[in-house]
Amino acid sequence: MTSAAARVGAIVEVAGPQIPELLARVEDRLAELARGHGPVLAQHAGATIAAGGKRLRPLLVLLAAGPQGADETQLLAAAAAVELVHSATLVHDDVLDSATLRRGVPTVWSQGGRELAIATGDLLFSRAFAELTAAGSLEAVRALSRASSALAEGELLQREDAWDVTVSVERYLYRCELKTARLFEAACELGALSARRDTGDVAALGAFGRRIGLAFQLLDDVLDVAGPESVIGKHRGTDLLDGTVTLPLILARERDPRLAEMNLRTVTTPEQAVALCDAIEATGALEQSRARAHAMVDEAKADVRSLELAERQRAALELVAESVVARSA
Amino acid sequence: MTSAAARVGAIVEVAGPQIPELLARVEDRLAELARGHGPVLAQHAGATIAAGGKRLRPLLVLLAAGPQGADETQLLAAAAAVELVHSATLVHDDVLDSATLRRGVPTVWSQGGRELAIATGDLLFSRAFAELTAAGSLEAVRALSRASSALAEGELLQREDAWDVTVSVERYLYRCELKTARLFEAACELGALSARRDTGDVAALGAFGRRIGLAFQLLDDVLDVAGPESVIGKHRGTDLLDGTVTLPLILARERDPRLAEMNLRTVTTPEQAVALCDAIEATGALEQSRARAHAMVDEAKADVRSLELAERQRAALELVAESVVARSA
Repeated sequence: MTSAAARVGAIVEVAGPQIPELLARVEDRLAELARGHGPVLAQHAGATIAAGGKRLRPLLVLLAAGPQGADETQLLAAAAAVELVHSATLVHDDVLDSATLRRGVPTVWSQGGRELAIATGDLLFSRAFAELTAAGSLEAVRALSRASSALAEGELLQREDAWDVTVSVERYLYRCELKTARLFEAACELGALSARRDTGDVAALGAFGRRIGLAFQLLDDVLDVAGPESVIGKHRGTDLLDGTVTLPLILARERDPRLAEMNLRTVTTPEQAVALCDAIEATGALEQSRARAHAMVDEAKADVRSLELAERQRAALELVAESVVARSA
Repeated sequence: MTSAAARVGAIVEVAGPQIPELLARVEDRLAELARGHGPVLAQHAGATIAAGGKRLRPLLVLLAAGPQGADETQLLAAAAAVELVHSATLVHDDVLDSATLRRGVPTVWSQGGRELAIATGDLLFSRAFAELTAAGSLEAVRALSRASSALAEGELLQREDAWDVTVSVERYLYRCELKTARLFEAACELGALSARRDTGDVAALGAFGRRIGLAFQLLDDVLDVAGPESVIGKHRGTDLLDGTVTLPLILARERDPRLAEMNLRTVTTPEQAVALCDAIEATGALEQSRARAHAMVDEAKADVRSLELAERQRAALELVAESVVARSA
């Protein structure tokens, strides 16, 4: 396991020097957008965007476009737009989950109230579409609107499924697809579209994105159970305390009759959640979940190998695919 | 003053029989969209859309397109999309204002919780863009994304200005423009775009929409102070209790030194709010506000008279313009 910075460094080394330059320009554009709507948004959206982390989605946009001749205006707008949608959902998710910290930074709602957070999320969301339509193609806007519909639908599905330990693996995977994978898919489609790749390539790069998005979410859910807390920056079992049933618990219930009989609502303290995490881990469900994530990454890598890509682009995409399951937080 | 149904009836009579047919198809499409995302959304979004009221924005889309040869797929998608954005903001606004009823129907958050309401609003919002991009032009998506950015920005501005009685008329009008008028503007632009009118006409019809949107919001704010409660369906002075400073209070403060010295935070009960409404009314500020709204409607009517439109279309647009200030709730 390596740090996020080291992983991005390795990817950039393979992909070429234009990637960090372009990422810096995306960063500038995001900062500009956060400043451009009055002091309230500048403070709250600025903090959210700054705390947004790895910029994995913009990186995917850039890498899917590849080294040769993308429309740069479209490309940068697409990279900023996917990150804005991601930021918007973070702001709303933190309200939904009553989370007070994100990456060590106070969340918008905890600083400015839930009302402000809802409006800030709405604005980031709207700005994403404004950004993309100003520069982009209708096809690109279509991809982003599909992804953001899916995100909201996934959120609704998760509320619907809360506390239901009988949820199936398929239903869980569908939820991950909606909540996470579709935006990864859109990021890759947007990159491919701005490089004017043909329909087949756009779809194949989109499929690559979807698979690594799924793997990313699976690993997130493994880490919530596995910890360690010093690395994930929160109590183990936070999802379980929220009633979110994820793959490790679903698989563990098939292996341990005591877990199969458990009512998740009886788990109400962080200590009980940690005990449940230990019980899940003891069944081997974490290894099984990790193996599923790795299998998806292998499929994703097969996706890109089937395409005619520049060697650097292929290598960089494969590295990103590996990075989503190699991370420890 | 006439009922909403009678007003729409009069408009339809002038505009021609294709308008109710098209409105019925918009209604079907909205119902279809509400049903198409699982039982939770069907229940909550369905109720919101059903309670959405007058369909003034879709009507504007249809009337701005006019009787001659609009692209029907684009037209219907545009009409549904503006209503979806409107519905999304209603769902989020009700969370922001902790409103339990809208048009006599329980609000989404009061039925399903704030979390569900945020996600439902996000989905309606995303669906609006998906709907428009599936059928529309990039130009149309651009107009809608500008309007929805403005909506969210207006909401943030309103939070920022809360309880500040020294807010200027210009700032108030700017807030109304963002919160209300820009979506009316987009509705007219979208209609004009689907009828493939030239850039000048799109802009002029947009300006018409913006003006009547402003007038609409001004009258809303007058009604909040004027009542009667039996007609507006809520206590007089609800906005004032929320700390929202509107034109009647701004103008009344210029005329009554006691109001100029008042701290809005001391107004905390419905009885005190009604007393404040009476004091505002006594200054003549309501007539002055109404006169402003009427002046905007006159300007809007001048906008449409400057265009080459079919006689029916012009008459229908003028009727809509009059209806926004003739209404009593």
